[in-house]
Amino acid sequence: MSKVEAPSKVEGRRAELRETLVALAEAQIVQGGMSSVKARDLAGKAGCAVGAIYNVFPDMTALIMAVNLRTFLRIGVEVAGAVVGHEALAPERRLVLLARAYLRFADQNHHLWKALFDLEMPRDSDVPPAYNQALEELFDHIARPVSELFQELDPDGVQLMARTLFSSVHGIVSLGLQNRLSGVPLERVEAMIEALLLRVAKT
Amino acid sequence: MSKVEAPSKVEGRRAELRETLVALAEAQIVQGGMSSVKARDLAGKAGCAVGAIYNVFPDMTALIMAVNLRTFLRIGVEVAGAVVGHEALAPERRLVLLARAYLRFADQNHHLWKALFDLEMPRDSDVPPAYNQALEELFDHIARPVSELFQELDPDGVQLMARTLFSSVHGIVSLGLQNRLSGVPLERVEAMIEALLLRVAKT
Repeated sequence: MSKVEAPSKVEGRRAELRETLVALAEAQIVQGGMSSVKARDLAGKAGCAVGAIYNVFPDMTALIMAVNLRTFLRIGVEVAGAVVGHEALAPERRLVLLARAYLRFADQNHHLWKALFDLEMPRDSDVPPAYNQALEELFDHIARPVSELFQELDPDGVQLMARTLFSSVHGIVSLGLQNRLSGVPLERVEAMIEALLLRVAKT
Repeated sequence: MSKVEAPSKVEGRRAELRETLVALAEAQIVQGGMSSVKARDLAGKAGCAVGAIYNVFPDMTALIMAVNLRTFLRIGVEVAGAVVGHEALAPERRLVLLARAYLRFADQNHHLWKALFDLEMPRDSDVPPAYNQALEELFDHIARPVSELFQELDPDGVQLMARTLFSSVHGIVSLGLQNRLSGVPLERVEAMIEALLLRVAKT
């Protein structure tokens, strides 16, 4: 009788539009990088008004963060998969496998990976909990071999070392792939990762 | 008698315009970051036509690379200065001092530092020799303690390890300063750098 739609139906449509926009933004990032994502283009492809985007996302940053969340989850899957069946390897060897999986993902999904770090992030309080949770899970994969390797570390120390090693490998991957500053050819990137992790493990 | 200026005078003017433009671009990067550098604005401030910029630089990338060269030289000075008077320290402790100087520079000159890595670089063949030389000198500062620390490494191995450690520290600085992905507060960045370098040194 009423012209007002039932809340569940409205919510369903909003969720659908969100999913559509995230998928379109993701495809655009893959193709042209984060800076090529434009509200007008997305609205055109989604068949909605530009304003409709801002009904389901507070701003374009939030939309790209939704893409980035998916990317982090995918990295988590790749990284976790890299050590399956290799549980018997020494922890430093498992760290090398994790790092290689990260390098491979970054190399094969360059624009998606770059968007993770190029996005100007909002204040911590505006970061969705799912986003931080995906990060925590990624660090947990690293923390496991780290805690075996450095048994003298307390849980805080393990977290610090896991983040230190992630950041270090990220730096090697990042400069290596950009073939910049250091001018390191790609084929040496794996050797650098291994050199670092095996040195760190030699205690 | 001729209206054509002497080559030396033309060259002098070109050199002067180059210097002016580099200084203006640098000031603009400090203020608003690399993406805020616009040819039109620079021409206005330099009192020249927009086209005159392209008489002295092939493109804006080349102009920003000239700024980046200055930045690399400044980092080299800071990094070299960090170990002066500390020659008697153990090599891993000197590496920590070098890394801290790098962190400090990045923190205090954020936009200039970011431009080093955000610029889409041309192919290697188009990179001016002075640029690569500044990089080599930066790596030499790192290679010195590295060669003392790992006396079993040949010169290639020392270079690889120096670049590996630079990239690692760069990753820690980069993610730490962005306070992103890893969500690491700035005060832990120094602890992470030290944790990494002292672990690597423990062989």
